[in-house]
Amino acid sequence: MRSDTPQDPDFELRVRDSFARQTIMQTLGAELVRVEAGRVDIALAFREDLTQQDGFLHAGIVGTILDSACGYAAFSLMPADAAVLSIEYKVNLLAPARGEHFIARGIVKRAGRTITVTHGDAIAIADGEETVVSTMLATMMTIRGRSDIRG
Amino acid sequence: MRSDTPQDPDFELRVRDSFARQTIMQTLGAELVRVEAGRVDIALAFREDLTQQDGFLHAGIVGTILDSACGYAAFSLMPADAAVLSIEYKVNLLAPARGEHFIARGIVKRAGRTITVTHGDAIAIADGEETVVSTMLATMMTIRGRSDIRG
Amino acid sequence: MRSDTPQDPDFELRVRDSFARQTIMQTLGAELVRVEAGRVDIALAFREDLTQQDGFLHAGIVGTILDSACGYAAFSLMPADAAVLSIEYKVNLLAPARGEHFIARGIVKRAGRTITVTHGDAIAIADGEETVVSTMLATMMTIRGRSDIRG
Amino acid sequence: MRSDTPQDPDFELRVRDSFARQTIMQTLGAELVRVEAGRVDIALAFREDLTQQDGFLHAGIVGTILDSACGYAAFSLMPADAAVLSIEYKVNLLAPARGEHFIARGIVKRAGRTITVTHGDAIAIADGEETVVSTMLATMMTIRGRSDIRG
Repeated sequence: MRSDTPQDPDFELRVRDSFARQTIMQTLGAELVRVEAGRVDIALAFREDLTQQDGFLHAGIVGTILDSACGYAAFSLMPADAAVLSIEYKVNLLAPARGEHFIARGIVKRAGRTITVTHGDAIAIADGEETVVSTMLATMMTIRGRSDIRG
Repeated sequence: MRSDTPQDPDFELRVRDSFARQTIMQTLGAELVRVEAGRVDIALAFREDLTQQDGFLHAGIVGTILDSACGYAAFSLMPADAAVLSIEYKVNLLAPARGEHFIARGIVKRAGRTITVTHGDAIAIADGEETVVSTMLATMMTIRGRSDIRG
Repeated sequence: MRSDTPQDPDFELRVRDSFARQTIMQTLGAELVRVEAGRVDIALAFREDLTQQDGFLHAGIVGTILDSACGYAAFSLMPADAAVLSIEYKVNLLAPARGEHFIARGIVKRAGRTITVTHGDAIAIADGEETVVSTMLATMMTIRGRSDIRG
Repeated sequence: MRSDTPQDPDFELRVRDSFARQTIMQTLGAELVRVEAGRVDIALAFREDLTQQDGFLHAGIVGTILDSACGYAAFSLMPADAAVLSIEYKVNLLAPARGEHFIARGIVKRAGRTITVTHGDAIAIADGEETVVSTMLATMMTIRGRSDIRG
């Protein structure tokens, strides 16, 4: 059923190349800190210009790095000529997103030919302590043969 | 059951004041363009520094303005001393988010004492034509008496 | 983008035939009461043997008729040789599901070649009054060429 | 943050008592096979009268036992006088639900005072082999002081 065996041995290069083209990640200051077959971690430092009305990281920004982490976890298991698109995602906010750093961890739950289901947690780190602040369940799609989507 | 009657006659002022404190909205260049009881619209101009790998607006940024639009739609119907927090949201990406401008429209489906359910669409405008690029279903919570969350 | 034009003029027959093979619908006593291109209504009478601990219709049963209504709304716009499968669905419970009758209404939000996004409401009718008790956002997939899935 | 420490030492009795009043569970033939603090398993044998058009267990029935498993996992950590209600759930269908037996496993991700977030998997067992056919992310609410909801 699920397979963590990447179809493309160069998956890490392909993930890093695509991430580098997500200009939003540079805008947010997000970094790709771990790329494995079926698992990707993205780190983000707290910044006041990314907050909501109470000074926590905005739920949508937590969702943004989780969506990218889940998308690239899915992408890491796709064929070399495929692109990835998010079909949908759901995120639960478990605790206010306060902390010095955040890690969004995306993991493949099941990789299919067309549909890959992923899940992920966002962890806040404050004073060396970790808190899961958010959890995502997301559906990704393998795209092939579309000139406007190269992944 | 659902009521669009605001409990606070100054709801618009309260929404605009809270939005002004969401610094992420200024960072993205998002604007509050419509505030009604149970409905809020947020506008965002396309910017290359908010895109994913294919040059579309990142799904997480679409989710960010939708989450705020839904949250403030819920907030508009809450009592004057309440704050709002997102419990969870789900977003479906219907089409690549390309366009010159985007409108995220949040609408209250049912306002309860503790839980408010909202839905919303994100619309892309390109060459005067509108396309619904994304749709959200989100759960918001009325918060009272917490010093760290003033809404 | 979205099209309500059915690709198969015999879509109603195809929906009714598939519904008749969903034996769970007979088990629940659910009926197909409306079939249009992109919209399907399923009716269910209240029964005590379908309830949760407080005597309301179980949330999962509300989800079951909503999932079928959304799935058949999607199916109504698919080609004649296609089958439909639910990829995922999310349901919000807005009010306890009490009433004499329930209607689950599924509507296509966007029909794509592979992915169709649908939404739907479940309405309870009690003493002639209607209450929306539940709302769904669901993702359906067009399946072709799989011998185990004929739709 | 999360705590698996039950507030009520008699939580198992309370879960079993409430489950016995979910008449839908008897209708489906579902059984409570494991009750721990923060984790509940429900078993269901395959039955043809619970299937969709291709002979698989209907996605909504998988959702029904997952929703109950998640709800009771949440309930197991609630105070003795509390009731539980599902606010919303999302389920991804990972594989067609075929098999002789199914286990729905609900686990608490974070238990809060009002909101408890849970997740769960549904596993199909066929010829001694296990397949995860479905995964859920669900939000539960602690209810107190409502005469119509005793949990």
